[in-house]
Amino acid sequence: MRKIPLALCLAVLVAVCGHAAEPERSYVAPPRVGANPAPPFSNGVMVGETFYVAGHIGIDAATGQAASNVETEAHLVMDAVKHTVEQAGMTMDDLVSVTVYCTDLDLYDKFNAVYRTYFRGQFPARAFIGVNKLVRGARFEVAGVAVKPVGARKL
Amino acid sequence: MRKIPLALCLAVLVAVCGHAAEPERSYVAPPRVGANPAPPFSNGVMVGETFYVAGHIGIDAATGQAASNVETEAHLVMDAVKHTVEQAGMTMDDLVSVTVYCTDLDLYDKFNAVYRTYFRGQFPARAFIGVNKLVRGARFEVAGVAVKPVGARKL
Amino acid sequence: MRKIPLALCLAVLVAVCGHAAEPERSYVAPPRVGANPAPPFSNGVMVGETFYVAGHIGIDAATGQAASNVETEAHLVMDAVKHTVEQAGMTMDDLVSVTVYCTDLDLYDKFNAVYRTYFRGQFPARAFIGVNKLVRGARFEVAGVAVKPVGARKL
Repeated sequence: MRKIPLALCLAVLVAVCGHAAEPERSYVAPPRVGANPAPPFSNGVMVGETFYVAGHIGIDAATGQAASNVETEAHLVMDAVKHTVEQAGMTMDDLVSVTVYCTDLDLYDKFNAVYRTYFRGQFPARAFIGVNKLVRGARFEVAGVAVKPVGARKL
Repeated sequence: MRKIPLALCLAVLVAVCGHAAEPERSYVAPPRVGANPAPPFSNGVMVGETFYVAGHIGIDAATGQAASNVETEAHLVMDAVKHTVEQAGMTMDDLVSVTVYCTDLDLYDKFNAVYRTYFRGQFPARAFIGVNKLVRGARFEVAGVAVKPVGARKL
Repeated sequence: MRKIPLALCLAVLVAVCGHAAEPERSYVAPPRVGANPAPPFSNGVMVGETFYVAGHIGIDAATGQAASNVETEAHLVMDAVKHTVEQAGMTMDDLVSVTVYCTDLDLYDKFNAVYRTYFRGQFPARAFIGVNKLVRGARFEVAGVAVKPVGARKL
């Protein structure tokens, strides 16, 4: 019967369980707009296997405001979330929870039609909330949580 | 003094720590209403020990809309959350965080009286937010996060 | 080649992996106001390394309502979050995700000026949502998630 050397056992323990004892943390910064100071939030924060995605909006790069066309804005906000998630080495299908804040619930079906196209597998849990107002004239703000094993990420 | 064979030690490591290296993921789908296509969200997503609960509303099965009576709606939304949580092998007391979105803050006390009855132990952290509008005429939408060790679930 | 005694191996397993198999859970209760019954939520719930922070508001202790001055209210709500986070043995910099619910988006810059002063490192992910109404006349409600390795907490 083979026995295990102490060093090997400890190495395996650190490799397998190490991130549980000391979760790695990294930040995806928001883009700077012109000479403005950086806003007081990160676009995402990774801790261990969980990636907390900030509320994103669909900004028209030309105006700095939300896109005037609804479908365009829906695509821009989902593109922004996708970009942040990919900066963390994840895909949209790693999202497990999403909150959509929306200033006009009559846009529910239009938003969903765009939203569906961003996922290939089963959908995250989601809350869809009709709110009063969003920053920069946005109709949609999308936040979420994504989870992926550390070893499976593509960075 | 007993020594441990390598195979046994590795088997224990995989069994005990394995879900940390590769979190299992499973989805609770939303109920289909008639011939409508499935909506683009899951009622809950389990990853590792954490279960992300979608925003639930209190729907009257006869009308497909929110119940007209406030207490009835509060019970229906909490029943819906409870049903989803139990589909994941958890109980309401496994909820650690809840967000209540409400279209009329004057219903705060009425909602709380119903809400209290769904927990036996200490209450989850909670935010109670007065929003503009919710889907299908709902007054309440309830989302949350539940956590339970994998081995302790009843499925 | 050294071999490992069974007792040592089990002790290491429990110490390193124990919280993954059985996450510890603890609750930070909300303060009691006068003779009122405790409200049905905890100010925070810790499970494993994650601390779920309830929605906090900036209450003037003299009136039990939100402070009349905007900057004062912003400080009070952030002080309340800080107090709860510290009760869990964490600091504001352990927050990874924050949601700010605000009844008046014109206060965005004023709130941010106060908010910035509560962090020393990089900022958490954040959503800033314009809502309809908050309890007790609050203009701001702040909820979040903090993460810190168990061994690194100061209690």
